[in-house]
Amino acid sequence: MRAVDVIRRKRDGGELIDDEVRAFVAGATDGSWPDYQVSALLMAIVWRGLTEGETVVLTNAMVMSGERLDLSEFGGTPVDKHSTGGVGDKLSLIIAPLVAACGGLVPMMSGRGLGHTGGTLDKLESIPGFTTQLSLPEMRAVLKKTRCVLIGQTREIAPADRKLYSLRDVTGTVESIPLICGSILSKKIAEGIGGLVLDVKVGSGAFMKTREDARQLATWLVRIAERNGVRTEAILTPMNTPLGRAVGNANEVAESIETLKGRGPKEIEELSLLFAARMLVLAGIAAGEADGLSKAGDALSSGRALESFAAIIEAQRGDPRVIDDPGRLPQPAAQEHWTATADGVISAMEAELVGRAAVALGAGRDRADAAVDAAAGITILAPVGARVRRGEPVALLACSESSRIAGAKALFGEAVQIGTHVTAPEPLVIDRVSGTTPH
Amino acid sequence: MRAVDVIRRKRDGGELIDDEVRAFVAGATDGSWPDYQVSALLMAIVWRGLTEGETVVLTNAMVMSGERLDLSEFGGTPVDKHSTGGVGDKLSLIIAPLVAACGGLVPMMSGRGLGHTGGTLDKLESIPGFTTQLSLPEMRAVLKKTRCVLIGQTREIAPADRKLYSLRDVTGTVESIPLICGSILSKKIAEGIGGLVLDVKVGSGAFMKTREDARQLATWLVRIAERNGVRTEAILTPMNTPLGRAVGNANEVAESIETLKGRGPKEIEELSLLFAARMLVLAGIAAGEADGLSKAGDALSSGRALESFAAIIEAQRGDPRVIDDPGRLPQPAAQEHWTATADGVISAMEAELVGRAAVALGAGRDRADAAVDAAAGITILAPVGARVRRGEPVALLACSESSRIAGAKALFGEAVQIGTHVTAPEPLVIDRVSGTTPH
Repeated sequence: MRAVDVIRRKRDGGELIDDEVRAFVAGATDGSWPDYQVSALLMAIVWRGLTEGETVVLTNAMVMSGERLDLSEFGGTPVDKHSTGGVGDKLSLIIAPLVAACGGLVPMMSGRGLGHTGGTLDKLESIPGFTTQLSLPEMRAVLKKTRCVLIGQTREIAPADRKLYSLRDVTGTVESIPLICGSILSKKIAEGIGGLVLDVKVGSGAFMKTREDARQLATWLVRIAERNGVRTEAILTPMNTPLGRAVGNANEVAESIETLKGRGPKEIEELSLLFAARMLVLAGIAAGEADGLSKAGDALSSGRALESFAAIIEAQRGDPRVIDDPGRLPQPAAQEHWTATADGVISAMEAELVGRAAVALGAGRDRADAAVDAAAGITILAPVGARVRRGEPVALLACSESSRIAGAKALFGEAVQIGTHVTAPEPLVIDRVSGTTPH
Repeated sequence: MRAVDVIRRKRDGGELIDDEVRAFVAGATDGSWPDYQVSALLMAIVWRGLTEGETVVLTNAMVMSGERLDLSEFGGTPVDKHSTGGVGDKLSLIIAPLVAACGGLVPMMSGRGLGHTGGTLDKLESIPGFTTQLSLPEMRAVLKKTRCVLIGQTREIAPADRKLYSLRDVTGTVESIPLICGSILSKKIAEGIGGLVLDVKVGSGAFMKTREDARQLATWLVRIAERNGVRTEAILTPMNTPLGRAVGNANEVAESIETLKGRGPKEIEELSLLFAARMLVLAGIAAGEADGLSKAGDALSSGRALESFAAIIEAQRGDPRVIDDPGRLPQPAAQEHWTATADGVISAMEAELVGRAAVALGAGRDRADAAVDAAAGITILAPVGARVRRGEPVALLACSESSRIAGAKALFGEAVQIGTHVTAPEPLVIDRVSGTTPH
């Protein structure tokens, strides 16, 4: 089989045979396909798409490029949750200990922030000492202790994805549903999970701007994952405004701790309980959603979820005293309020622009190899729907370098609209996509 | 400007600005654009196309990647001819000396055979001693002596084309009219010509299978060349069966010499005179086509064209005695007839399969770096329209290694159809496309 013939077949709109897809993934990973042939095929895939069958094989080949973990020694069905990325989206930090506190096994591998969206790893690393780079034996040791681990992708997991993603990033071939499916799911499947709940964000601050596009991505993700043997469902949630009040890293950890203490924003608590409930259903721990919500609610109100988070932090070498004393998290050296420019009601706060303002403060990165300022971030004081008077503080912008604040304020100002009427709040859940595997 | 942004713009169907096209060509040539970004953009161009404006800039940037020759010292308007490639197409070998014998200046740079089509350089190199790799000073010396030179692309000419073509060849990005225009025309324009006649082949043995596709390519080529300052026209000619009786290298040289002696196949002589006439018109030597045909006819019948060919061979270190004694050309060690399988009329002889049979004999190459057997080739004894009896020879297959003959005969057999009726011969010219620059 010659690479050029595979490229030509896809270029002409044909369907690749399984061995061709596998040869592509293997060749990209071991370098026997030169990068210029890999990127030409990636662009042909963006153009012509992949069939569901091709995408199943692609995803499986990406999983098999590395190790697929066997977590059977821990008992139960390992479950995970994945978000397509948003602003202020700290749900993973709350849901993972919540599910573990209910007896679920959560081997969660997450990513870093890029562009206007934040990343779970960056947030966790703002906890002093917290280590997200664990070896597989260390990962197993943490899982054994706490039934949950919150780490980055290890070297053994889906090396094909690392290779393909780095090429896609610089060749304009990120935007392809089949390629996105392969990238997201290969990592999750390789974790050894049996159940997966996807949070597919919809809106101006998400990768998918419309409900239709998000539903299409969700449907693909669910089908491809299920055909690779993982029970999967997707919940579509809005991402027009940031989730919760904190956008950044340390401040999002603090908001997560508040939520685990039962004092977080209502929307964050409700979504966390819903995702946890669905994961408990997929794990076979809850009999149905109502049972799952009840079990998750108990874990939250009893403080067991908070204890679970403390145990995870300790097991991953972080300082668990941040739970009782959030002042131990990195604190900003500089902060300034953004104040209302008129009397009225906050009618919009564009998530993407708020995210970009946070990046301007140093909380995120535009290049994959850049460092982040753990103390940088935005705290929303007057969210959408709040009445404000001209000059009143709407948000607090904070970071370690005061020179960054002016630019961030300008971006934040573009994100905010002050109107005259209170509009109905968005629903927390826009839609759901279920798998066909009987649960 | 970031390469990935240029790629994304084309991927999304946008038009690139001139500086982006120039950055792409320069970056591909000097390596500042990595190959994987170049090939991703090439695939996006195959997908989305280029506008006429983009293609003009692309072609110009490819010319400017190297030297654009100035041949004004020789006087007159340099003219050239280019064929999109066929089987048995030795027209360049006849036309170039014909035009030079009429006072035209012909700085012809040609290519090698690839796939089922032959190449002018391979044919010329079957003449003992003939050198097609000349430096630019050597090229000028030959031009001065004979007003014609028949060489390969020198290092100085359109290096961007060498780079882009080698990538296109292995990334499935050859089939794109704008990229084909850039590749063909950048080399021709860089030769310093003022007039160009294109032979766009149409048919099962050509790159363009239909008259419509060929006309589209011809129209693009003419417009892009004219917008780069070269008076250009295209003649569409059929390529369903091989041109003439000889397919190979040395045997095609022999047939060219026969034609220059006035004893060649009628179709070859007529097409040669027509192309020569059009080139003489573009060079300003002939007042119109009738005058051009008359001048070219005189050069042929007087023997001046043959003398011109002898002079070119000698100037390029070849042995001019092949003119009088074609036995001095490489002779095959092995040869066999393919004989008619039935009584009837030769109703078809598929050019592509005949070309592939010639490649099987060693006359061509499937890989750009392979060597060719100068003595290998096919001589057609009973062309389309000829009556044959079962067992009568239809063609002679010859080469240096007898082991190659069986496979070539099988391919040749697939090319031939023997029917019952004589069908009308194809017209020599299918269509013409003229430039808009007033001649």
